[in-house]
Amino acid sequence: MAVINSCHYFFLYSQLATLSPSLASTYRFSSPRKSLRTQITCSATPASSNPMEGRRKFMEFPYVSAPVRNLMVDLVSTLENRLDSQLLPCTLPSDVQYYENQTGNAQASLQIRSGLHSSPIDFILGSWIHCDLPTGGALNITSLSTYLNSSTDAPNFVIELIQSSATSLVLILDLPPRKDPVLYPDYLHNFYESTQLDTYRQTLEKIPEVTPYFSPSLYVRCFFSPTSIMVRVETEAGDSARMEEIVGSYVDPVAKDVLGIWLNHCACGGREVGETEKDYLKKRDSLARNKTIEIDLGSSLPRLFGPEVGGRVLAEIRKVLIA
Amino acid sequence: MAVINSCHYFFLYSQLATLSPSLASTYRFSSPRKSLRTQITCSATPASSNPMEGRRKFMEFPYVSAPVRNLMVDLVSTLENRLDSQLLPCTLPSDVQYYENQTGNAQASLQIRSGLHSSPIDFILGSWIHCDLPTGGALNITSLSTYLNSSTDAPNFVIELIQSSATSLVLILDLPPRKDPVLYPDYLHNFYESTQLDTYRQTLEKIPEVTPYFSPSLYVRCFFSPTSIMVRVETEAGDSARMEEIVGSYVDPVAKDVLGIWLNHCACGGREVGETEKDYLKKRDSLARNKTIEIDLGSSLPRLFGPEVGGRVLAEIRKVLIA
Repeated sequence: MAVINSCHYFFLYSQLATLSPSLASTYRFSSPRKSLRTQITCSATPASSNPMEGRRKFMEFPYVSAPVRNLMVDLVSTLENRLDSQLLPCTLPSDVQYYENQTGNAQASLQIRSGLHSSPIDFILGSWIHCDLPTGGALNITSLSTYLNSSTDAPNFVIELIQSSATSLVLILDLPPRKDPVLYPDYLHNFYESTQLDTYRQTLEKIPEVTPYFSPSLYVRCFFSPTSIMVRVETEAGDSARMEEIVGSYVDPVAKDVLGIWLNHCACGGREVGETEKDYLKKRDSLARNKTIEIDLGSSLPRLFGPEVGGRVLAEIRKVLIA
Repeated sequence: MAVINSCHYFFLYSQLATLSPSLASTYRFSSPRKSLRTQITCSATPASSNPMEGRRKFMEFPYVSAPVRNLMVDLVSTLENRLDSQLLPCTLPSDVQYYENQTGNAQASLQIRSGLHSSPIDFILGSWIHCDLPTGGALNITSLSTYLNSSTDAPNFVIELIQSSATSLVLILDLPPRKDPVLYPDYLHNFYESTQLDTYRQTLEKIPEVTPYFSPSLYVRCFFSPTSIMVRVETEAGDSARMEEIVGSYVDPVAKDVLGIWLNHCACGGREVGETEKDYLKKRDSLARNKTIEIDLGSSLPRLFGPEVGGRVLAEIRKVLIA
């Protein structure tokens, strides 16, 4: 039984710029100043010969709090138990499954598993990224996302937890639609209204420490559903215990329920589509994926990890996203 | 020089249900219990023979605060000065231009002007609605919206101010897109990113009394742009002066600027489209308008004004919206 490990990089750089402008500007200029030779000789972590080593490192979630780690391990395991027979093993090079920057203050883990030809799953991505902040503390981004292929029009699943300190968290949790809900109101009804997805957003909205989060990227805002959970959680200075309570008692059950809805209604109960709709889905999916890379990955990975490591990881992601 | 008076009814009932559940339930059941004969004899305001009487009543905005009235008169006048040569006069029956319910505790004004055949303006709608609340106080909805035809793909304009008390306001202000921004990223860039529309949302977001507003209708949420201003303003009990200050000093200049962007970039600088895109725009516009009626108007107008008056107004709106 293999593990589905998925990394959602969608919003990395725009998040960084919002959450930690100093970090974003630091990483924007630091790496390109180094010589290419230095990067090549110093930046790559030696590739391991054990194909399961990347998966093991991913599942450790070594830098996040226990409630975040428990949640992520549970979500990955739930996906794995349900969809394992439809998924191929992760075939990424080991130095893409785990990588770090030259100075060793940024580490990341990436797992991608493609779906079998007969499956509606296109691929599944999981990741964590850890960056020491110039101001002290660290940024941790933990994510899991799924991508269906054009045999079905069902929405995808995404969760991303971005912690810039022990008392500050941005949570993105959604089933991003794959059709324009204004043009397809039945799609909205089928996947969002009848599943009562908005109740989960309402549950989190009631917590005093929770406020809505607006992505700085307008495209990213459009990408999500009207029931998307995009929130910022800020607990009082030093009160990391309250943050852990919020993640463990509120975020955890909500995320598990939303994944359950995705598994039952989208991955395993999704609607098949005709040829015309397939073309529409292919075009819209392709545009969304290309914009994803343009907005975030194309600049953020080289900035955070240097052009050689960032470029190598980006090339592997491109192979899957724009296959 | 005639006045453009436009009424945006889009979200009436869903707003009512959120803002004042008691009012929504009161109006849901009160009118249908009356006999049709009573409604016919009592509910219609006598039609005036003066064609300008409806316009005059609309421009009075008799029940709202001075800052709201000043803003609405300014927006209407600005539209009028810029677009008057493209618009036909309002030809609604006088008992649709002004109407009230049987008991006289709900009054409303409606103005619709269609665009000339050569204009990109399909029609423009303006309205105010005033309802006494069973709990005391009153609900006032004031709105202005524009609808372009399929000769251009430019966004529409909408402003709606919903006051359920002197210290509580919901503001909806947006240029709703007419194409799916995920499928048309250049559309997003052209009308939303390059115009810096999000700065206006950010300006209002910083006011302490302002919080995001989520429409209870998921379709309504999808209908708006990623830079839409959908906010609730709540000032302290009894502090209507602060509400007036917020409307006069913040909402007023933001709304005027957003209308200016619409006039310059959409009404007068919009892009022309080819035949295939025209079909797409017609289909999407038609769906949005039909859903509008289904979600709100079809039930809310008869509930608030009784089936006879509500039905009469609805029939006239249908003629324009689904022509």
